[in-house]
Amino acid sequence: MVNETQHTCSASSSSRSDGGSSSGSESSKDNSRCSTPVLDADRHERLREKMRRRQDAGDKWFSLEFFPPRTANAAVNLISRFDRMGAGGPLFIDVTWHPAGDPGSDKETSSMIIANTAVNYCGLETILHMTCCNQTKDDITRHLQKAKRLGLKNIMALRGDPSGEEWEEEVDGFNYAVDLVKHIRNEFDDYFDICVAGYPKGHPEAESYEADLRHLKEKVFAGADFIITQLFFRPETFLKFMKDCQAIGITCPIIPGIFPIQGYHSLRQLVKLSKLEVPQEIKDVIEPIKDNDAAIRNYGVELAVSMCRELLDSGMVHGLHFYTLNREVATTEVLKRLGIWKEDPRRPLPWAVSAHPKRRVEDVRPIFWASRPKSYIYRTQEWDDFPNGRWGNSSSPAFGELKDYYLFYLKSKSPREELLKMWGEELTSEESVFEVFTCYITGEPNRNGYKVTCMPWNDDPLATETNLLKEQLEKVNRRGILTINSQPNINGKPSTDPIVGWGPSGGYVFQKAYLEFFTSSEIVTALLKVLKKYELRVNYHIVNVKGQNITNAPDLQPNAVTWGIFPGREIIQPTVVDPVSFLSWKDEAFALWIEQWAKLYEEESPSRMIIQYIHDNYYLVNLVDNDFPLENCLWQVVEDTFELLN
Amino acid sequence: MVNETQHTCSASSSSRSDGGSSSGSESSKDNSRCSTPVLDADRHERLREKMRRRQDAGDKWFSLEFFPPRTANAAVNLISRFDRMGAGGPLFIDVTWHPAGDPGSDKETSSMIIANTAVNYCGLETILHMTCCNQTKDDITRHLQKAKRLGLKNIMALRGDPSGEEWEEEVDGFNYAVDLVKHIRNEFDDYFDICVAGYPKGHPEAESYEADLRHLKEKVFAGADFIITQLFFRPETFLKFMKDCQAIGITCPIIPGIFPIQGYHSLRQLVKLSKLEVPQEIKDVIEPIKDNDAAIRNYGVELAVSMCRELLDSGMVHGLHFYTLNREVATTEVLKRLGIWKEDPRRPLPWAVSAHPKRRVEDVRPIFWASRPKSYIYRTQEWDDFPNGRWGNSSSPAFGELKDYYLFYLKSKSPREELLKMWGEELTSEESVFEVFTCYITGEPNRNGYKVTCMPWNDDPLATETNLLKEQLEKVNRRGILTINSQPNINGKPSTDPIVGWGPSGGYVFQKAYLEFFTSSEIVTALLKVLKKYELRVNYHIVNVKGQNITNAPDLQPNAVTWGIFPGREIIQPTVVDPVSFLSWKDEAFALWIEQWAKLYEEESPSRMIIQYIHDNYYLVNLVDNDFPLENCLWQVVEDTFELLN
Repeated sequence: MVNETQHTCSASSSSRSDGGSSSGSESSKDNSRCSTPVLDADRHERLREKMRRRQDAGDKWFSLEFFPPRTANAAVNLISRFDRMGAGGPLFIDVTWHPAGDPGSDKETSSMIIANTAVNYCGLETILHMTCCNQTKDDITRHLQKAKRLGLKNIMALRGDPSGEEWEEEVDGFNYAVDLVKHIRNEFDDYFDICVAGYPKGHPEAESYEADLRHLKEKVFAGADFIITQLFFRPETFLKFMKDCQAIGITCPIIPGIFPIQGYHSLRQLVKLSKLEVPQEIKDVIEPIKDNDAAIRNYGVELAVSMCRELLDSGMVHGLHFYTLNREVATTEVLKRLGIWKEDPRRPLPWAVSAHPKRRVEDVRPIFWASRPKSYIYRTQEWDDFPNGRWGNSSSPAFGELKDYYLFYLKSKSPREELLKMWGEELTSEESVFEVFTCYITGEPNRNGYKVTCMPWNDDPLATETNLLKEQLEKVNRRGILTINSQPNINGKPSTDPIVGWGPSGGYVFQKAYLEFFTSSEIVTALLKVLKKYELRVNYHIVNVKGQNITNAPDLQPNAVTWGIFPGREIIQPTVVDPVSFLSWKDEAFALWIEQWAKLYEEESPSRMIIQYIHDNYYLVNLVDNDFPLENCLWQVVEDTFELLN
Repeated sequence: MVNETQHTCSASSSSRSDGGSSSGSESSKDNSRCSTPVLDADRHERLREKMRRRQDAGDKWFSLEFFPPRTANAAVNLISRFDRMGAGGPLFIDVTWHPAGDPGSDKETSSMIIANTAVNYCGLETILHMTCCNQTKDDITRHLQKAKRLGLKNIMALRGDPSGEEWEEEVDGFNYAVDLVKHIRNEFDDYFDICVAGYPKGHPEAESYEADLRHLKEKVFAGADFIITQLFFRPETFLKFMKDCQAIGITCPIIPGIFPIQGYHSLRQLVKLSKLEVPQEIKDVIEPIKDNDAAIRNYGVELAVSMCRELLDSGMVHGLHFYTLNREVATTEVLKRLGIWKEDPRRPLPWAVSAHPKRRVEDVRPIFWASRPKSYIYRTQEWDDFPNGRWGNSSSPAFGELKDYYLFYLKSKSPREELLKMWGEELTSEESVFEVFTCYITGEPNRNGYKVTCMPWNDDPLATETNLLKEQLEKVNRRGILTINSQPNINGKPSTDPIVGWGPSGGYVFQKAYLEFFTSSEIVTALLKVLKKYELRVNYHIVNVKGQNITNAPDLQPNAVTWGIFPGREIIQPTVVDPVSFLSWKDEAFALWIEQWAKLYEEESPSRMIIQYIHDNYYLVNLVDNDFPLENCLWQVVEDTFELLN
């Protein structure tokens, strides 16, 4: 929005349509499967309600603005940034709309797809910007329909930049943001929450500050739910603007847009685009240090913190909107210093909940995708019926095909050269593969001095929770039990536990120990003998790439491996070992050997043939120790297996 | 069946219809709500499959035959007997059909209603006898349809007694049991499991033993699934019969009918009806002791035990069918001595599962009806959708009306005089009511020397589990906290625990502490103040007869108070405190004061007015302590309340 412009408009204001809300009926439509207790009211509210609730509770909040990147690689990085900055607890993020960048397309870099990723895969409440000038009604409607289909619920309605130097009204076209607001309300009733832009100094093209205020009021009365402002440099600018808005009857939330100065260049460019004037006192500080990026950023952070403090202290401001310029450090720093960056170790569920309205009732998932949650969401995106995660019943919809995992943001974030350094330029034996797994677990550099920070089955370094098992994991990986997923047993830790806790406070969380690994058929033969001794205690599934499947699971029933007990709620069991979905996961897990690892090497090369051999001959094994109150016996199972082999 | 007779028949045998089984498709029809893990394969099998599975596993089993009683009071007693004898683990019970007693009617004493009660309310696999002679096809079909509607799945197909002395075939009528078997298969396909009668000595009216065997074969080939035999006095009689059956190609299970001699009279009457001859060696023993009932019964038990042992030792017999004559002692004694009476403290769920095919997926119930499970089943009998027990969602069907609780077998089993002795001939104050509650808890006699063995809200003496809380319960009842339901907290006891265990072995069961009571508004006022201190820990619902309702339950969500974790299964949470159903329970709980207690006294009498006062002014309270791993705080809550009052 930083570089948005807007013209005055004379369209008459129309009052907001509130009747026959289709989204209202949607949210009250109860699922006949009532096993999902509402864990988090948040998940069921629309953005404007969340805002109101936070304000009523006296909570301060923040939001983050991003623009779509230019390249697919940059998109992958931006999505990682969403995950990292999402951890700080923004109330929402928003994604700008660049008409030149084909913003409504299916390209990896389009506004639409970036916003889609934020809401569905990162679980972030997301506002999609949309501009209307130089576009047909049909185009706009198509974009809005697509946004709705993708699960987007909030639109920032903007005019957009005129195509020529001079602004000319189009007959029957969308000439002003207010036209877009009206169009959205006409065509989509109350489905979307609508945000509009406010200009604390007045829009540069407006006849006057007062005229601009009147236009803002028109946008609000046409159906906008809240206002985000253009950036400004002095807190009093915003506070005056806010009072002026209130004076003419604008009562909806007005969120100040904060721009932490991050560099001399970006500031100059911004000023040029927004036609804002930088106050002399700021220029005086910046000019002398204009070549010292660090100094400017430090100053920018100081300035932003002090301005935000003043805004919050005024009692008029409840939320702050940050223009991040897709950067992380300065904004995070400001938020942390303000104390509103809230990295809450308490997750509502052990896995990230998608923010798609269709998926908000989802309350159980198979454990197999724990390290590939985006793949899971992608492959189940066509499902109508959540909660799911159980494939054993006839109502289960089709599971997305394996080819879907080529989804761009599931591709490894590291380039080929880096992966080769981590996973080995040249593999000489199966043992060199064992070493890679071991280094990933230990965090120690490999024999060439490189740390293994990701694996084909794990995009990220080892989870904190898995760290609890590090010592044992190292031992077994060295010997060819190639672990890709595990969790310790937990017997009733508080739901607020910083490592294993999740869900509302006052509860208790539990886990059954779980271990999943690839291993050779020789080890599987010994393992099966050992497992006879543990028949009543350990459930296992053992499968190879051809689908040969050995299990002692009763009747293909799921085994709950993570559950929580909370005050005044039904039991929540968000993670299961589901025998049927394991066979879908198996396809994905085996394919990753080839797609992500083997293909790094030349065809017919020894390295590639080693990975191919493992793919063709190893088994994928999962083990659950059902006796969660006792000491985890899975290590003993593995120990016994090695002993039998010796 | 003891007094059944049967004629020879020449109808040609027809092979069993196995195609297009409607029940087959019914049992495979998956419920879209897949939260019910199959705990007990038993619940999903039909009787003939259970028989086969027990035989394959080498398990010995028994079954029990009862006849419908003559009076409503006797019916109530018989149903208690079902509950007690059901505890020993019969594979099924069967209820005889008496054409003279209007057996298909809705009378409390009809065969149909007694069988209905056994299957639905006592959770017993049940066979309903049905005779066909002197009845029209339409009558028979109507009976069968009704049986199906009530959830009965098994029919014993019999001819029945001819109306005159001499047997005459009716044209187009049902003349033989085989006609009934064919009719059931024609009209109901494979829905029912069908049992037919076998005569080890040949039917008294048959041309010959061999001819009778051929008729039996016809019944089996017409679609019968198994055979129960007429009683006999020597094991070799049965074993020869069985070999003869096998020799002519009868391969279905043949279950010997065992008649433990219980008295001289009943034996004589039986012999007369069945036209059997009592062997001389038995007569020789009995005649000299014919006036000594105890001696005869002891002898009868001895004889039955030794005969059963011989049958079981032969390896040809897997199950024994007992003609109980509606008596308990002799049969139970025989079964215990044989070691096949298996009082298994491990329940599949904490409450008795109804054997109705529609309800077999039911896996959760509100805790409120814990002491009135039959009322719960009755009031939910029209529901299509199980598991339920949660009323908060729009799909919940209507709950049966309160008037339903006048159901005959929910009426107190004790006559008015006895109740007055227990609950007080004359009440002088609310405190005399407190005393009644206290005596029920302690098991001590009341001031008139009578023990209080039941209460309007509890048909039976205190549950073993409640005994764990006895001391505290006594204390609070004395002071006017009139408890009607409670459970201790349990933090992961083995599922095999003899007191609180349930479900398959290898699991762990949990409970949140629960306390439900009536109390005065004065105590409620203090209680509410105390509960503020426990706001985050204790959930409460407090309601009076007018429906004034005070609660801190979030969003009317159910609170799971009993759950179990089992190997290879999802979590099972069979008991919940459901805020919505609590209001239905409230109506029932308050009504019981008047219907069962106040009405014992004259109108306008002081005793009646005291109960009426309590009904009109007291509150019904339930409390849940969510912190199940800690010491139950509910007693402290009550203690604090009393302290505040002092």
